[in-house]
Amino acid sequence: MKNMNVAIVGATGAVGVEILSCLETRNFPLASLKLLASKRSAGKQVAFRGQTLTVEELTPESFAGVDLALFSAGGDISRQFAPIAAAAGCVVVDNSSAFRQDPDVPLVVPEINPEAAFDHPRNIIANPNCTTIITLMALYPLHLQFGLKTVIASSYQAVSGSGQQGIAELEGQVRAIVDGHPVESKVYPKQIAFNLIPQIDNFADNGYTKEELKMLNEGRKIMSLPELNVTCTCVRVPVYRSHSISVVAQFYKPVDLELARKAFDGKPGIALMDDPATRTWPTPLDSTNGDTCYVGRMRRDLAVDNALNLWVVGDQVRKGAALNAVQIAELLASR
Amino acid sequence: MKNMNVAIVGATGAVGVEILSCLETRNFPLASLKLLASKRSAGKQVAFRGQTLTVEELTPESFAGVDLALFSAGGDISRQFAPIAAAAGCVVVDNSSAFRQDPDVPLVVPEINPEAAFDHPRNIIANPNCTTIITLMALYPLHLQFGLKTVIASSYQAVSGSGQQGIAELEGQVRAIVDGHPVESKVYPKQIAFNLIPQIDNFADNGYTKEELKMLNEGRKIMSLPELNVTCTCVRVPVYRSHSISVVAQFYKPVDLELARKAFDGKPGIALMDDPATRTWPTPLDSTNGDTCYVGRMRRDLAVDNALNLWVVGDQVRKGAALNAVQIAELLASR
Repeated sequence: MKNMNVAIVGATGAVGVEILSCLETRNFPLASLKLLASKRSAGKQVAFRGQTLTVEELTPESFAGVDLALFSAGGDISRQFAPIAAAAGCVVVDNSSAFRQDPDVPLVVPEINPEAAFDHPRNIIANPNCTTIITLMALYPLHLQFGLKTVIASSYQAVSGSGQQGIAELEGQVRAIVDGHPVESKVYPKQIAFNLIPQIDNFADNGYTKEELKMLNEGRKIMSLPELNVTCTCVRVPVYRSHSISVVAQFYKPVDLELARKAFDGKPGIALMDDPATRTWPTPLDSTNGDTCYVGRMRRDLAVDNALNLWVVGDQVRKGAALNAVQIAELLASR
Repeated sequence: MKNMNVAIVGATGAVGVEILSCLETRNFPLASLKLLASKRSAGKQVAFRGQTLTVEELTPESFAGVDLALFSAGGDISRQFAPIAAAAGCVVVDNSSAFRQDPDVPLVVPEINPEAAFDHPRNIIANPNCTTIITLMALYPLHLQFGLKTVIASSYQAVSGSGQQGIAELEGQVRAIVDGHPVESKVYPKQIAFNLIPQIDNFADNGYTKEELKMLNEGRKIMSLPELNVTCTCVRVPVYRSHSISVVAQFYKPVDLELARKAFDGKPGIALMDDPATRTWPTPLDSTNGDTCYVGRMRRDLAVDNALNLWVVGDQVRKGAALNAVQIAELLASR
């Protein structure tokens, strides 16, 4: 394992802060670490491994001498700066959706397709959509066992998926309601406190949102299953952190519940939390601030042939974003 | 229409209060109204149509001279007192699940199977499960158009589905969190504030909860579709009122989106709130305290043949419980 010169782009955002935490706690092999953000955040000081790092303004010159850049500052910043970083010889792990469907950009979940990370002709590797990562962490072990055919999913997505501003909007609305003040909505088109928003990202022409189509397009690419059928409804819920997904997964082979449970034995990053007899199932709070995704409520589906019904939960700031990006970086550092 | 002597059993509960409100605002043809509840609530005074009514203790003698009793005090009270009321010549509309699968007890949604209300050999009519009513309000017009084959649903259920105590638990937990105090959970097995509980009611042997099986068993009975396939995952969400359901509905006939939209034209109690171009879709707050259920996000399903994807919202204390019961009473009063 070689020590790497790393930069974080968007270091002060919700995911950037978590990337920093993952690098620190996982003891990532660093030669140097550069924190990059907008001009507004430049000059901020951040503690890291007993040192104080100063956030620098992101410029086209930022990537000289940088081996690896972890981008998490939105699609516009990625589209502008990731090619500049890549041209400077830096490998980019990009958390935005900007490059995910580019055939020359691998889309990687290290537990599923680690080899893909090493084939990056554009020097860019894409980090998948949060809801897709968490759902696939549960589905991939079952796919290996039974052969995945169709995914029917409904999501329950936390406000941290919208970054710090989503968290602030829910906090502010809850406080206004408790204090009897009027509620203001800025981040979401309607009130999110004690309410649900059945639209995440913009609409495509077919009536699905782009968030919903990510599960289809990214799921096919990550698992190399071009024929996979996926339908999804994505809903924002008044939860601060951790996404949940209710999934009906149909397989080519007949399913067996005991085999399905065994499929998770020894698999990293995913665990069963599933025992109806003791009312055991995972909630968003159970996975919050943790690295593990959880599967509960697994049962044979009553309506769909060869199908399992399951409830999946994972911290989308960690495994759904920062942790997965750092795991990709670890793969690269390992060779 | 004849004036009826009516009793409300469980008059001080969340649904009982709403039944009273429906009787008042809908100008139900009353000869007399008796409010019945546990000994604890007896003596309470309630305003109704400019009069003051006093809550009486429920006893086996309560039903003398009563034509119609609306029960909403839980399954145990219904099992004990509904047969007593029925034997006294009173017709019972029961909001509990106690009699819903009894072949001699009709299960009625007035917009779907009104005729069934008049065939009640046990003098008991069952009011269906809240999530089932709201989902079927959306599915039945589509069934008439295309022939319903399979329902795949994930619910987002409000705490008022657990009565006043569910509302109090969410309020108390939110206030504790805002004030920085520890959170106590009494009604739900884990924290519901800013969290999700993927279990409603107890588990059956097949890994589904009883709440989830109601959608199957009650859906078949109400629509007279004994072959209907239904799978469902029911989840409690931190919303005060109005249930939401994400549904994939598969039909026997090919679906057409324009025909599907027209299926709701002129249908009472259900309306489209659905326009991606203007980001229009219903949220729980949109249906709260209203009589109408709403359908949004309707689109051709990408993964399932002949299927539509939709998002349904309705106030489960009103159409999901009190309003539906009062509508059944209105049917009976109309003959």
